[in-house]
Amino acid sequence: MRFISRTSSDGVIEQLFTLDGIPGVLWTPEGATGTRPLVLLGHGGGQHKKAPDILALAHRVVAECGFSAVAVDLPGHGDRPVDEELDRIVTENQARVAAGAQLAPLIAEFQALVARRTVPEWRAVLDAVQRTEHVGPGPVGYWGVSLGCGLGVPFVAAEPRVRAAVLGLGGASASAADAARVTVPVEFLLQWDDERVPRAQGLALFDALASSEKTLHANTGGHGEVPAFELDSTLRFFGRHLV
Amino acid sequence: MRFISRTSSDGVIEQLFTLDGIPGVLWTPEGATGTRPLVLLGHGGGQHKKAPDILALAHRVVAECGFSAVAVDLPGHGDRPVDEELDRIVTENQARVAAGAQLAPLIAEFQALVARRTVPEWRAVLDAVQRTEHVGPGPVGYWGVSLGCGLGVPFVAAEPRVRAAVLGLGGASASAADAARVTVPVEFLLQWDDERVPRAQGLALFDALASSEKTLHANTGGHGEVPAFELDSTLRFFGRHLV
Repeated sequence: MRFISRTSSDGVIEQLFTLDGIPGVLWTPEGATGTRPLVLLGHGGGQHKKAPDILALAHRVVAECGFSAVAVDLPGHGDRPVDEELDRIVTENQARVAAGAQLAPLIAEFQALVARRTVPEWRAVLDAVQRTEHVGPGPVGYWGVSLGCGLGVPFVAAEPRVRAAVLGLGGASASAADAARVTVPVEFLLQWDDERVPRAQGLALFDALASSEKTLHANTGGHGEVPAFELDSTLRFFGRHLV
Repeated sequence: MRFISRTSSDGVIEQLFTLDGIPGVLWTPEGATGTRPLVLLGHGGGQHKKAPDILALAHRVVAECGFSAVAVDLPGHGDRPVDEELDRIVTENQARVAAGAQLAPLIAEFQALVARRTVPEWRAVLDAVQRTEHVGPGPVGYWGVSLGCGLGVPFVAAEPRVRAAVLGLGGASASAADAARVTVPVEFLLQWDDERVPRAQGLALFDALASSEKTLHANTGGHGEVPAFELDSTLRFFGRHLV
């Protein structure tokens, strides 16, 4: 893990890094020493590690909870090189949908393929970040919606350091088998009028989670219209479960 | 409206009253003068105006939000006389269920009958309470789950003073037509493993609400197992919408 830059804003230190070619960013409270909870933020499709929603959430996790937060670019996203295999599959899928194929199974197949890379990448990121003195081996949370949910479910299922997760805007066809291995507390966001994830698919993914404590927050509106008050709820959820 | 008693505890004034034979209780902040938001609390079946969940919520509404709260006994409940018509219907329904009849339509029919009394009763309670100097004509919220939802949906649909409502643990067969006339913000509680309200019925009632802002909070557990953190969320919801 190599740190590239260090900047500070409103009490939040932001450090860019690379780890085995993966560009990432670590946020910690200014002056922090010693172990603290860490939240890994999984960005959405077409986004990157410093997309506005990721940046806003990271700053609030650090400033309001005193935790650390980390995000990395997904394969083919942000500062990572174009991924020819993934690009080819996306192009093929677009052609298959144009020819009348169903979108949901293609998305599921694609996310499963990407997850086979991101699960080990994210575990390596946790290893490296938790070796820094100002993060340390504390409890870990995961936040990810949409593609960040599709990749997050297999990650949370595989990684015992994760103690709580906020997921959502994803459907069961992508990850029901992995969901059945998720047992930590989950807050699950669903948009009641989601134009991309059929309502029944979202409800089925929530249902498939094996967690004994799980809460579904369903709001009116489309895929990109999660209300701002859910961010407050996310912070309270991590505050309850990571300390 | 006749006040019967006045006691004080932890900064909360509790006044018992009767209004046209309906026993009720009004909670206000100690030393309160002038208009403030009011939350009407609808108790559950077999419960009464000072049941533990009602009392706990009323105290927090007053102490933490500075609002007032009011609850009255439902017909045949608490300090009200036995209601022979309702008792007869309950007994008949028990016999019909024992003989194999479906429970949900009987509950729906029963709640519709009770609501024809409670809607005008509760409107009269609002009129009277809002004429007191320490409550006044401020915004009104409604809270009610289970039977309090079945009676609350027609009340909220009929009463324009209600600006926001917490409902839940109820199903669509009881009140879908009234739900389509509810347009205020709603926070709706659903228990994912509710043994009394089928999940699909609860989801259908949430879906039937015409509110442009509505949030479903679904948690694991049975009908009586709403997690304690939902009470915090209820207070924040009323805090957002009644000030």
